Amino acid sequence: MLYGFSIINGESRQGNGVVFSGLDPAAGAVLDPVYHGASREELNLAADLAEEAFVTYRKVSGKEKAIFLRHIADGMESIAAEVVERAHRETALTEARLKGELARTMNQLRLFAQVVEEGSWVNARIDPAQPDRKPLPRADIRSVLRPLGPIAVFGSSNFPLAFSVAGGDTASALAGGNPVIVKSHSAHPGTSELVGQVISRSVQKCGLPPGVFALLYGAGTTIGAALVEHPNVKGVGFTGSLTAGRALMDRAAARKEPIPCFMEMSSVNPVVVLPEALHTRAAQIAGGLFASFTLGVGQFCTKPGLVYLPRNDDGDALVAELKKQVEQAAISPMLTEEIAKSYRSEVAHRQTDSAVQMVVEATPSDDCGSMHARPVVFQVSGDELMRKPELMSEIFGPSTLVIRYEGRKELTALLRSLEGQLTATLHGTAADIAESADLIALLERKAGRLIVNGFPTGVEVCHAMVHGGPYPATSDSRNTSVGTLAIYRFVRPVCYQDFPDSMLPTELQNRNPLEILRMVNGSMTREVVAPAA
Amino acid sequence: MLYGFSIINGESRQGNGVVFSGLDPAAGAVLDPVYHGASREELNLAADLAEEAFVTYRKVSGKEKAIFLRHIADGMESIAAEVVERAHRETALTEARLKGELARTMNQLRLFAQVVEEGSWVNARIDPAQPDRKPLPRADIRSVLRPLGPIAVFGSSNFPLAFSVAGGDTASALAGGNPVIVKSHSAHPGTSELVGQVISRSVQKCGLPPGVFALLYGAGTTIGAALVEHPNVKGVGFTGSLTAGRALMDRAAARKEPIPCFMEMSSVNPVVVLPEALHTRAAQIAGGLFASFTLGVGQFCTKPGLVYLPRNDDGDALVAELKKQVEQAAISPMLTEEIAKSYRSEVAHRQTDSAVQMVVEATPSDDCGSMHARPVVFQVSGDELMRKPELMSEIFGPSTLVIRYEGRKELTALLRSLEGQLTATLHGTAADIAESADLIALLERKAGRLIVNGFPTGVEVCHAMVHGGPYPATSDSRNTSVGTLAIYRFVRPVCYQDFPDSMLPTELQNRNPLEILRMVNGSMTREVVAPAA
Repeated sequence: MLYGFSIINGESRQGNGVVFSGLDPAAGAVLDPVYHGASREELNLAADLAEEAFVTYRKVSGKEKAIFLRHIADGMESIAAEVVERAHRETALTEARLKGELARTMNQLRLFAQVVEEGSWVNARIDPAQPDRKPLPRADIRSVLRPLGPIAVFGSSNFPLAFSVAGGDTASALAGGNPVIVKSHSAHPGTSELVGQVISRSVQKCGLPPGVFALLYGAGTTIGAALVEHPNVKGVGFTGSLTAGRALMDRAAARKEPIPCFMEMSSVNPVVVLPEALHTRAAQIAGGLFASFTLGVGQFCTKPGLVYLPRNDDGDALVAELKKQVEQAAISPMLTEEIAKSYRSEVAHRQTDSAVQMVVEATPSDDCGSMHARPVVFQVSGDELMRKPELMSEIFGPSTLVIRYEGRKELTALLRSLEGQLTATLHGTAADIAESADLIALLERKAGRLIVNGFPTGVEVCHAMVHGGPYPATSDSRNTSVGTLAIYRFVRPVCYQDFPDSMLPTELQNRNPLEILRMVNGSMTREVVAPAA
Repeated sequence: MLYGFSIINGESRQGNGVVFSGLDPAAGAVLDPVYHGASREELNLAADLAEEAFVTYRKVSGKEKAIFLRHIADGMESIAAEVVERAHRETALTEARLKGELARTMNQLRLFAQVVEEGSWVNARIDPAQPDRKPLPRADIRSVLRPLGPIAVFGSSNFPLAFSVAGGDTASALAGGNPVIVKSHSAHPGTSELVGQVISRSVQKCGLPPGVFALLYGAGTTIGAALVEHPNVKGVGFTGSLTAGRALMDRAAARKEPIPCFMEMSSVNPVVVLPEALHTRAAQIAGGLFASFTLGVGQFCTKPGLVYLPRNDDGDALVAELKKQVEQAAISPMLTEEIAKSYRSEVAHRQTDSAVQMVVEATPSDDCGSMHARPVVFQVSGDELMRKPELMSEIFGPSTLVIRYEGRKELTALLRSLEGQLTATLHGTAADIAESADLIALLERKAGRLIVNGFPTGVEVCHAMVHGGPYPATSDSRNTSVGTLAIYRFVRPVCYQDFPDSMLPTELQNRNPLEILRMVNGSMTREVVAPAA
């Protein structure tokens, strides 16, 4: 049941802010119900409840948080058909894709459940007292990670499930012990509400204070900005554009009390094709590239937007193959009118650039409307790109730019001029790769994830994943928004000196009641610690 | 040998910037030599060399970095007498204190050497490929922490060794694989130069590129600001005032590419005395407090600046004892003229405040000059403090403010109004502490380190230490500047997908050549990983 209301204090609540509606991008039709934006007062209420809930929620054990996270995952599963159908209508993403995304969202919640249930993630460290040390005795010093407080999460347009209301930011913040206030993305308000209701029911079912979760609607940027500036909010998770992300970063940094942010923003995900690989499997690479840059209508943060090809016949063959595939490409609607408009305008702008050659643009069928995006491939020479670095900026949608390089020296110079990226990919034979230590070292400084002989779309949710990278890919290269490392964004170490054992957090108590792995005197162990003499 | 020169490219180099001199605060005398500030061009050179050195230094193994760090520690040891003597002249801190600080600085370098030599700190994570997984195969995903790049380190005024040229920021940045550019604090230029020469010699001796380390002088804030804004600089470590730290934070955040900062800035380190403890050992607590707030002329970030005492006879007794001790206190010169002037002015301002009672101010002897700081104790009622929260701000120097609270309820309200702190301390009997779970939970949100029955000065360098805390104590509560956790400020995870084993960083290779503890499929192990089939 959709109300068009925010969720505050565990209840659907009609907001007093500006109203707006979801839109079906395929049909161009307005969707029911009307959504009521939250007012500043409603935001304040949600923030006060989050602060109040934090007093309790921060003490909740890992086992209980695991039950809560699994409850949310199970709740998502129980509304699978409904939420996929609504998300499909609101985003025009295919049902197959959305089913996969739903599975991923549930996996993510369950993976964090596993991490907090096991418990060792808290980085418990114990340096026992040394009363007889000379010249001075050492106190008993112990530290453990503790939650930051209420976290603001901004749903993204392009992942209505996995980077939205119950996505990775929410899952990791909740796993870390932080209440969450989600600012719903206006492109999929119904999907957000369905998922918000699931979380809200889980909060209630698990006996947690209702302020642990809130969902706020807002048509423009006012509520989001106010959320980042609210003194109760202690951290931010965001996935979206560079413009919006940087604006929120700047607000977070300008607060009286600046707060940590993780904004995942802008990446063109360079793909470098090395000569021998190109010679041996141009068609295969072209096929993979085509699939990757058009996947989800090119609306992925990891879409390969720059492809570096040698200026030789093999390179021409790959471009020809890419052209063939694009000519046969299906044309699909984008997520929102604004995104489609921006895509058209950026493609048109590039088409007027005399330095750039348009290799191919897919031909629309009669039923394509203004929301449909035509896949397009551009091509430029390495030296033109060096003259026009603005060509390296992201176009959100199914376009890619092929850069033809003259040799290793030019390739290196081109890659050196890249900004920060989420990913960087090398295609090469064993011999190509073995000769590329210098390129790998260079790309390591540019990106959060380096890929050999693969494609950047498809981000595995696992322990070793890094979905991050130097600015402008993200606001802070030391973090990731995907994978279990993401939990570390919203926690901080707290140190306890000479505490009586019973007053320590459970993770730090002598007898190691949770049987977690801890660092004792610098060594990792699950052993108990002897009580002080 | 002191030249008064910056150290760039492994050489002493006369700067073209503004000249200034060190000052002996005890004698009020100008010290030789004259120091030549670095110009913008010299800064650019240091930054370019750091960038160049990073290409090599980031590949240096943990074992080699350990040798380098121990070489610096040994070098400090070899100049112990000279550096302590110079630091004593430049800071008026006692030789005993400076010897202790030197030992701590060397211990710190050696502790980081141990951490990087063992190697497991890099958080190596391996999720091996699952080629047969349904519905999609899983790629091989591995991640490890890698250095950020050149780090700007700002020496502090109050720790001429441990938080200065070869202090914790430098040690942790170098341990993490980052070149370091130190902006020397102008209060101890000679000490800085001696230590800078030690590091520079170690760079050379270990065959590292000279850009791994630079030391820059600058009389004002120009060079520091330019350093934080230099595009080659990828992170900042700073210890100093809130005003200076916030100004640099704002510059770092306003860059085209914002960079991570760790500023350790302002803390008043509340000490709460609970009734039973007060009743049983008022004199002992008074003695400890007196020693702690006057230690090093009150010039510690962890100086207890707020003391919460019950409004009863026991509280009066403690204040009386504190008064007695202050009356007999020695009076010592502060670090710099500016600091002494600021202390006098803040104390004078508080003396005119009718809400505040001056309990005692130490009487100066005839040989006290304008640099000498008289220890002072103020007292205020809980309700007056609630009306005047500005009384909770830091006065850098040997002053403390006793707050008399009426009962647990008022105490809780008072503590709730605190800003972020480096430390918070509780004095209580076992019974007092057992009844204080609520206070501990509250203080946990306010501070990086919680202490029972101790005093906040004296920060142990160990694995579990947290010298951090919510703003304004630091710029980011998720970090610490003391202890081995400090290394995590200047590194970022990088992920490798489907890499050939030989091209992976050593830490991630199948056979685990460094025999480090790694997370494989979510479990910690030192086992080898089977090569892909």
